[in-house]
Amino acid sequence: MYDVTAVRRDFPILSRQVNGKPLVYLDNGASAQKPRAVIEAVTQAYAMEYANVHRGLHTLSNIATEKYEAVRGTIARFLNAPSEQEIVFTSGATEGINLVSYAWAAPRLQPGDEIVLSIMEHHANIVPWHFLRERQGVVLKWVECDANGDLDPQAVLDAIGPRTRLVAITHMSNVLGTVVDVAAICAGAKSRGVPVLVDGSQASVHMPVDVAALGCDFYAITGHKLYGPSGSGAIFIHRDRQAEMLPFLGGGDMIREVSRDAVTYNDPPMKFEAGTPGIVQQIGLGVALDYLMGLGMANVSAHERVLRDYARDRLSSLNWLTVQGNSAGKGAIFSFTLQGAAHAHDISTVLDKKGVAVRAGTHCAMPLMTHLGVGATCRASFGLYNTVQEVDVLVDALHLCHELFA
Amino acid sequence: MYDVTAVRRDFPILSRQVNGKPLVYLDNGASAQKPRAVIEAVTQAYAMEYANVHRGLHTLSNIATEKYEAVRGTIARFLNAPSEQEIVFTSGATEGINLVSYAWAAPRLQPGDEIVLSIMEHHANIVPWHFLRERQGVVLKWVECDANGDLDPQAVLDAIGPRTRLVAITHMSNVLGTVVDVAAICAGAKSRGVPVLVDGSQASVHMPVDVAALGCDFYAITGHKLYGPSGSGAIFIHRDRQAEMLPFLGGGDMIREVSRDAVTYNDPPMKFEAGTPGIVQQIGLGVALDYLMGLGMANVSAHERVLRDYARDRLSSLNWLTVQGNSAGKGAIFSFTLQGAAHAHDISTVLDKKGVAVRAGTHCAMPLMTHLGVGATCRASFGLYNTVQEVDVLVDALHLCHELFA
Repeated sequence: MYDVTAVRRDFPILSRQVNGKPLVYLDNGASAQKPRAVIEAVTQAYAMEYANVHRGLHTLSNIATEKYEAVRGTIARFLNAPSEQEIVFTSGATEGINLVSYAWAAPRLQPGDEIVLSIMEHHANIVPWHFLRERQGVVLKWVECDANGDLDPQAVLDAIGPRTRLVAITHMSNVLGTVVDVAAICAGAKSRGVPVLVDGSQASVHMPVDVAALGCDFYAITGHKLYGPSGSGAIFIHRDRQAEMLPFLGGGDMIREVSRDAVTYNDPPMKFEAGTPGIVQQIGLGVALDYLMGLGMANVSAHERVLRDYARDRLSSLNWLTVQGNSAGKGAIFSFTLQGAAHAHDISTVLDKKGVAVRAGTHCAMPLMTHLGVGATCRASFGLYNTVQEVDVLVDALHLCHELFA
Repeated sequence: MYDVTAVRRDFPILSRQVNGKPLVYLDNGASAQKPRAVIEAVTQAYAMEYANVHRGLHTLSNIATEKYEAVRGTIARFLNAPSEQEIVFTSGATEGINLVSYAWAAPRLQPGDEIVLSIMEHHANIVPWHFLRERQGVVLKWVECDANGDLDPQAVLDAIGPRTRLVAITHMSNVLGTVVDVAAICAGAKSRGVPVLVDGSQASVHMPVDVAALGCDFYAITGHKLYGPSGSGAIFIHRDRQAEMLPFLGGGDMIREVSRDAVTYNDPPMKFEAGTPGIVQQIGLGVALDYLMGLGMANVSAHERVLRDYARDRLSSLNWLTVQGNSAGKGAIFSFTLQGAAHAHDISTVLDKKGVAVRAGTHCAMPLMTHLGVGATCRASFGLYNTVQEVDVLVDALHLCHELFA
């Protein structure tokens, strides 16, 4: 039985007040709060067990290395990756997707080659491909979602042509909450010989993910959204794609030998990891993923479905509120505008006075904003520690906004 | 008056034992331990003040953004950069140097163009340039140090030819401790119209740095060596060089507008910072630099000179020990081999039994190892909390090694 009251006690920050009100943290789509176990692991690592990893032979270095490298296996289990050698540590999804753009795509794609994207992508899964457009003439092909925010996987497959070299697609929209049928896209793309990169920044936080079952080539996750430290993350890269990649960042750990005239590289995944890594952040991410797996991602997902259904009912009853995205199976992410003059920024400021933290703006998804015909939205995004009572606090605060700005 | 006893009390890990002996941490060249103020700032940030930075309008996001962005000014003060707009946040020196390689050098350098390096460079300041050699025919020109480990700045300037586009040089060797006369190199290079990148990973930890006085174009630092969190760091980039750079990683924050067909970029330094950054790490780095400036870098440097002189005296008295590098003004870094059969790894393992943490290997400096004619060394690298008594513990443990392996 999922006990959200007990879960909340694991997060120190949830006991604090904001502007004299209990914190209602609904900005999980931007970043999630951290359980005590993660904070304590970070503290312990710095206070008692810190050293650089790899190549050390002293006790502290061995402790740090064992804890750090064990996280690779934890991430592999979390994503059901066939091998932990297919897990590359990154500082987050942005670095992961850029790694693929620079090290896999840039050396392979020719002018006129195409990348298929959905209109729902986050800038992290757009701008690296715009670089390839600007720098080497790659063509971006966009697939739109429907009025509900649903994305037809067949529309994505229909966009694949003879010059398509990659499909880059989100697993869950950070604005609409739409869950994309990535498995269908991967199956169809595979039959056409086209690899698929999945931006799992949101989906991995809210539902069980199985990269083997999805059949994707790349799956990027970001630790700070997964209740782990800032600057942590990883990307699953199928071994066949790893074999096709150049190194990306140059430095320590990713080399085998360096001389004046030559350099040879380490085997993957180390080939793609340069310099002193985010040692303590990744140790903390491992603790966060163990925490999630301890709760059970299916249980987290079920809890958030309850929140989603309750929030959807309550928000849809406000006839002066427009919610963007109403996909049946969406995650608990609600982007909305108020009819009338209220700007999203003003709404978020009023909500903050009531202790409710939401985000306002374009959510790093400007092409989607244009598609939706909105300049900006407020976004309430729920996490595993949120409650139906917090939905009520949000709705009460929105009523106040409506009164203020109507 | 520099009170090392008081300083040591600021570092929780220094009170622990290793293998039943008090920890003697002499692996600072690889990474430094963290003062309590840094650890507590990290804990506080996660436990009570965490949110994503920028674009948020709620209280927690504003707190995190203010603390995070204030660090840019702290780093500018630490390096005496003319403007905090010339400070770009990175995950460490490796990312910083790769940023320059990808975003400044790669788009500019033509086949046959040259980069001048010293033989003392760390792989982080070699491999990014090897990429340019492999991928676009850039030529690497190496300048050697003399038998003492000294590097003649004139030899570096003499290596500059009409095709030289960059000098990439360390400020302090991580193996020999040699301090390079970067100011002379910058002055001479500038008169020849050649920019200079300085790897400040080691020097910034051990001496006052003034990038304005040095006259360099790029100065990379790494937070985890500066007593700050892992995954933190920055690079000073002169505004004239910023203006010449493409963006590097694509994603949030570094854009101004994104559409299906176009992308425009933010102004520097944000142009070079993509995605959710290392929020808490950088906040911790700010605290670490405040701690260092509170002690006074000149005082830190003076303390470490005492350690260096004492260690040099004691180590040079061991006629079965060969120390690499004897530059007069070197930092307190000692790389050595024992005559006889003892491998560096075996020595470090024995030292660890006595609680002494040193590193053994090639120290990410294989070209230097080849130049020195050694396969590997042990390295004892001192920091601001080390003591002359710890030098004695090291020497006693080395005597034990000598007895064991002689």
